[in-house]
Amino acid sequence: MALSDLKAMARNEAGIATTLGILKQKFGERFQTSQAIREQHGHTTTYLPNQAPDGVVFAESTADVQGVVRACAAHRVPVIAFGTGTSLEGHVNAPAGGISVDTSRMDKIVTVNTDDLDCTVEAGVTREALNTYLRDTGLFFPIDPGANASLGGMAATRASGTNAVRYGTMRENVLSLRAVMADGSEVTTSHRARKSSAGYDLTRLLVGSEGTLGIITEVTLKLQGIPQAISGGVCPFPSVEAACQAVITTIQMGIPVARIELVNALQMRAMKIYSKLDYPESPCLFLEFHDSDAGVAEQAESFGEIAAEYGGGPFLWTTVTEERAKLWKARHDAYWASQTLRPGARALSTDACVPISRLAECIAETEADIERLGLIAPIVGHVGDGNFHTLVLMDPNDPADIGRAEEFVKRLAERAISMDGTSTGEHGIGQGKMGLMEREHGHGVAVMRAIKQALDPNNIMNPGKILPAG
Amino acid sequence: MALSDLKAMARNEAGIATTLGILKQKFGERFQTSQAIREQHGHTTTYLPNQAPDGVVFAESTADVQGVVRACAAHRVPVIAFGTGTSLEGHVNAPAGGISVDTSRMDKIVTVNTDDLDCTVEAGVTREALNTYLRDTGLFFPIDPGANASLGGMAATRASGTNAVRYGTMRENVLSLRAVMADGSEVTTSHRARKSSAGYDLTRLLVGSEGTLGIITEVTLKLQGIPQAISGGVCPFPSVEAACQAVITTIQMGIPVARIELVNALQMRAMKIYSKLDYPESPCLFLEFHDSDAGVAEQAESFGEIAAEYGGGPFLWTTVTEERAKLWKARHDAYWASQTLRPGARALSTDACVPISRLAECIAETEADIERLGLIAPIVGHVGDGNFHTLVLMDPNDPADIGRAEEFVKRLAERAISMDGTSTGEHGIGQGKMGLMEREHGHGVAVMRAIKQALDPNNIMNPGKILPAG
Repeated sequence: MALSDLKAMARNEAGIATTLGILKQKFGERFQTSQAIREQHGHTTTYLPNQAPDGVVFAESTADVQGVVRACAAHRVPVIAFGTGTSLEGHVNAPAGGISVDTSRMDKIVTVNTDDLDCTVEAGVTREALNTYLRDTGLFFPIDPGANASLGGMAATRASGTNAVRYGTMRENVLSLRAVMADGSEVTTSHRARKSSAGYDLTRLLVGSEGTLGIITEVTLKLQGIPQAISGGVCPFPSVEAACQAVITTIQMGIPVARIELVNALQMRAMKIYSKLDYPESPCLFLEFHDSDAGVAEQAESFGEIAAEYGGGPFLWTTVTEERAKLWKARHDAYWASQTLRPGARALSTDACVPISRLAECIAETEADIERLGLIAPIVGHVGDGNFHTLVLMDPNDPADIGRAEEFVKRLAERAISMDGTSTGEHGIGQGKMGLMEREHGHGVAVMRAIKQALDPNNIMNPGKILPAG
Repeated sequence: MALSDLKAMARNEAGIATTLGILKQKFGERFQTSQAIREQHGHTTTYLPNQAPDGVVFAESTADVQGVVRACAAHRVPVIAFGTGTSLEGHVNAPAGGISVDTSRMDKIVTVNTDDLDCTVEAGVTREALNTYLRDTGLFFPIDPGANASLGGMAATRASGTNAVRYGTMRENVLSLRAVMADGSEVTTSHRARKSSAGYDLTRLLVGSEGTLGIITEVTLKLQGIPQAISGGVCPFPSVEAACQAVITTIQMGIPVARIELVNALQMRAMKIYSKLDYPESPCLFLEFHDSDAGVAEQAESFGEIAAEYGGGPFLWTTVTEERAKLWKARHDAYWASQTLRPGARALSTDACVPISRLAECIAETEADIERLGLIAPIVGHVGDGNFHTLVLMDPNDPADIGRAEEFVKRLAERAISMDGTSTGEHGIGQGKMGLMEREHGHGVAVMRAIKQALDPNNIMNPGKILPAG
């Protein structure tokens, strides 16, 4: 099956009709069934076709979510959590219809514990809203997937981003979750203690489960102290391989880079045009260091020496906030910049992740594949983790173009898996990468299915995601 | 039920007899049933009574482990993984009999990838053996639970230790696992990529599952570069509270301490006697910093200033290896040193973990409880994580003494839970803390039971651990 040709799953029409009536009565104006609202909740930032739910509940509390799940459970109707709709692999599509639970009104910051460097927020709080709220505390939440996603959604998709090399992903930064399970019961997975050996790790079972095991309603997160100083800059390299070698040496030397991002030559051309960056059109690393004043200077100097060893440089770095902000805005705008390379096209953003020793080889083969397929597809990556994105520019209305892009994505994922990597470092499986799960996990898929069956026996939690039909 | 009065569970005599015959034929001399060997595998470093398995297989490969599990699965016989026997909560007891799988001969280091800072080892490799092997690579594995435990066992119990504040626990440091599941099937949970969003996190489901969901046969681990410089020292404080305040400020300031250990006044007295340490008998912090030469000096100086703010000091620190080694040997010998406080007694080592803002209060209440119960019980802790140990000195042959110790442990665990903490930060549940699971996890226990039932429907994998009878 081509992804662009997604089939609907069997609908439980009677159950859906009954549930719509119950929810209308229970939630009144907070339950919406207009086509515009349903369609807005039926697809994500992706080329995959829209599959709208039958209705949307704007939940304001865990109790609201329980109310929806109980109604859906009683009538075996799908229930799909919705954060900000910024996921990339069809995570919130409703292939069998059902009810979307929009958590955007669950936007309360429940507690901030400055002594413990943690906070608890409702699922709909976005990462930018949290960081704005934290501004006066000297603390910040580092995980930065680009989009201003909700923290519940980021937990559900095991999101990460540019800072992960230093601060980890949602896997490492969620201390505990509150979630509503498929039977409408509520579970709190852990507590605020930094570590525990008490039983199965339900927190990390739910992180990355994409709403297929439960709906996250609150998240307890680690916070970080805002560093005393930040330095950053851009360093050109003669080749992707040279840049990757510099990354490996930097990580091996234990230099605690906060960000180390690769931009390939084609993407640099796009960013020069879109963001008016004045750098050569060769592969570049964008870096940032967080430490004391002395520390950030020492780290930047050390990196510059490493870069020179591999023919890179000059590494121009600064601690001036405005100059750094311009660089990182350009990096974050990579998605939009890429579209200047093929006006009118849309970018399909895909990601893969490999051990860093294989990164140069993986990117080189990927660039060759792009050439072979005649695609325009720049590459950017969180290379400290071995994670990179390819932005495939395509005409979403041209089946041949979509077919080439899908072939490219499948080959990229298989290449990454064959290099002891993964089909997705941070975007998740959703619908888009279900077909790769058996290839990546083998018998692990059967173990995952057993867990899904145990926790959601009627398959009402975001059906048709992560696990391919058995 | 008092723990010291552990009941046996129902035995499947016919199945056990059949399985013993099969294993004898299959494994020959590598299958042992002598009483001495069975008893050696039937208890851990604990006061809990011995519950010996019916036989022990010395496995040499994943295929061997599969052979044992398949035989046990066919005849519904318990199968219990055994690493080095250093766990503390009755993890390897065999309350329903069955077969112990000793992994100590699975001691091969499969691969070390220096470019990627990772390695794959068989489950029986101990942390000291790994670090000896790594010596020439410039890398090390940081997790240090005190005992020279096997890495499979450390993964199974989600172990940590003194370095966790800097490097995390086994939860953060296992990249992937190979395991044999209850039906004898083999699963590899992940790959060497640093991060992934591809499906449920089976790695972290198995980490901490104490052999109740599967038997870990290989572990892929993150490694760290050996720091350029290490500094360390001891800092006395006027009170536990002052020491804890200094810890909170140190963590908040973002000083990347590698170790920050609290030793209370009573334990300092024991260590003065046992390890000939020349420090006051007041609460002390033992610290270590890993960084560049300049960095470790800067960090130690910064900590000294923080300590002085809370009335602590002088903070005497050094980069001389021998002096640091003496301090850390004393810290690691705390268990043995404590026994000088009550000659002839044995130490029951228990642990709990709370958010660091509650640590001073939790320790103060614990010290008051020790006094109330008339116990001799010094305290040491990995306070950067809010984790601390109490070593209760008791006569293992005196039921009244055991009763007091058990009451103390239960009250300590409940105190920690009530402070948003956990009954165990790193020792695990085993048999010893099963009775606290409902109190700590509430409905989460039902979710854990559903997972256990799905993955081990006949309850053959280390039965009678973690999950209390429903």
